[in-house]
Amino acid sequence: MFIDKLIEGIRKYGNPTVAGLDPKLEYIPSFIREKAFGECGKGFTGAAEAILEFNKRLIDALCDIVPAVKPQLAYYEMYGTEGIRAFAETCRYARARGMLVIADGKRNDIGSTAQAYSAAYLGRTDMDGTVLSAFDADALTVNPYLGIDGIKPFIDECASSDKGIFVLVKTSNKSSGQIQDLITRDGKHVFEKVAKLVDEWSAAAVSESGYSSIGAVVGATFPEQARVLRKIMKRSYFLVPGYGAQGGTANDAACAFNDDGLGAVVNASRSIMCAWRSETWSGKYEESGFDHAARDEAVRMREDIRRALEAVV
Amino acid sequence: MFIDKLIEGIRKYGNPTVAGLDPKLEYIPSFIREKAFGECGKGFTGAAEAILEFNKRLIDALCDIVPAVKPQLAYYEMYGTEGIRAFAETCRYARARGMLVIADGKRNDIGSTAQAYSAAYLGRTDMDGTVLSAFDADALTVNPYLGIDGIKPFIDECASSDKGIFVLVKTSNKSSGQIQDLITRDGKHVFEKVAKLVDEWSAAAVSESGYSSIGAVVGATFPEQARVLRKIMKRSYFLVPGYGAQGGTANDAACAFNDDGLGAVVNASRSIMCAWRSETWSGKYEESGFDHAARDEAVRMREDIRRALEAVV
Repeated sequence: MFIDKLIEGIRKYGNPTVAGLDPKLEYIPSFIREKAFGECGKGFTGAAEAILEFNKRLIDALCDIVPAVKPQLAYYEMYGTEGIRAFAETCRYARARGMLVIADGKRNDIGSTAQAYSAAYLGRTDMDGTVLSAFDADALTVNPYLGIDGIKPFIDECASSDKGIFVLVKTSNKSSGQIQDLITRDGKHVFEKVAKLVDEWSAAAVSESGYSSIGAVVGATFPEQARVLRKIMKRSYFLVPGYGAQGGTANDAACAFNDDGLGAVVNASRSIMCAWRSETWSGKYEESGFDHAARDEAVRMREDIRRALEAVV
Repeated sequence: MFIDKLIEGIRKYGNPTVAGLDPKLEYIPSFIREKAFGECGKGFTGAAEAILEFNKRLIDALCDIVPAVKPQLAYYEMYGTEGIRAFAETCRYARARGMLVIADGKRNDIGSTAQAYSAAYLGRTDMDGTVLSAFDADALTVNPYLGIDGIKPFIDECASSDKGIFVLVKTSNKSSGQIQDLITRDGKHVFEKVAKLVDEWSAAAVSESGYSSIGAVVGATFPEQARVLRKIMKRSYFLVPGYGAQGGTANDAACAFNDDGLGAVVNASRSIMCAWRSETWSGKYEESGFDHAARDEAVRMREDIRRALEAVV
């Protein structure tokens, strides 16, 4: 099951984190951009080539210390068909280097359409008997606003294969409360109601570990809510965005973990991708060493999270 | 503004409907599939070729009677990079034939990422000074679960260009109530709270028509709720799914309109795409006449909606 592979990766590297691959062009070192634009033209093909080269070098630098990458689909879709090609190649490359791939697409729709999204990212596409995987990620983020109809096809996939999902419950952004924090008649927040649903749904894909391949997205920027949610969704692994550049600390992120030191995986994107120009690493690395800086930052983050967990667990 | 273009199209053809392009392979006539698989191989490239040929013939058959198409992204993403190429080509072809394109992607994320989605579907992508449009749709469906942060980049685009969005408020599927119908402390449903937000957001992109390019998705399967929502979001055009195959009738859909006969555009996908094998049209058409059947069904739907509107307005 997906959750076993995730826990195995986290244990192997002693590292409950995931590296976000959100390759904004401005994050990519100029020498990579210039080479790609020179070879493929200054347009979508060149941009996609630059993204792929950037991602590959990051994956090479991180694959023996970080268990998973999380490419954010928007940053590929903005380069059109060529961007999607770079996304597909990135997924393939990361998996070949032994990393799990969590596609961050926050997909959602009615049942029949959710089935198509599930086929696209987790399952297979049947073309009159020829069956192929489009992107073959290990997990996908999904949005619960349409209720179980739109989640069921993903749950079925997770229950019958080695794939997983993370359902948005409490997101890391400032305005997440506008809908998620609405208080319902029985005094519970909408995000708690969603958490209760995710807890029910998670029963369909529980492994011997006691954890489920049906996880939840819970932002590090809301540690108090994470503590509440940890109690509601006991079986669900939390994917925790918001650490680092968005303001969440290791102590905040620690609230998403269980007493066994498991239960969550913390994402960082910008702080790893752009480590070479950060205050911490810009003295040690130049642009050409962006991948080494990313690795050093990933190690620093791992230790930061570990320390916070030791204080709590 | 987008909303002016939409209203102009609706008036020109006397037809407040949109044709969904959800090209499941099983919907595509076998002669198109066989030709495409023969020429491009039985795989993603062949499937994408079949989808594009199917869409083009539908667009040719509909472009002088229906103002807009709504391609559903999931049915392209499931064919990987080649599927996305077919989506991009479909958008281009439809616009060249004078139709508006509503990309149905239900995208959502935190602000910086929503900005990337906005660039991908509505705006432009800046690559070190070279500025190109990835998909250049006219409008996009978006999911409000993250609040204003994740909607603002789209609103800014709609306010400054000729693009639009439709925010999910009350969806057409059976389980839409699990979250959308939760009752908040002040006795309002979550979907009413979302509608109130959409109404606030819609102020940013109102044209001289009095309508806004910030619209809402309100399912035809919930006519009572549509009546309530019509009063909350006075400026917003409603994109109405659920007519036809999903069970919504013309009278149900009519609840989404204002007294001026405007205010909504009703979608049908399967009933138009698969008209040739429906009870109504299978006596008149064979598989090879699928596009003529689609046109006849689109006319029948137009008259069906018109009749229902005349009874109400």
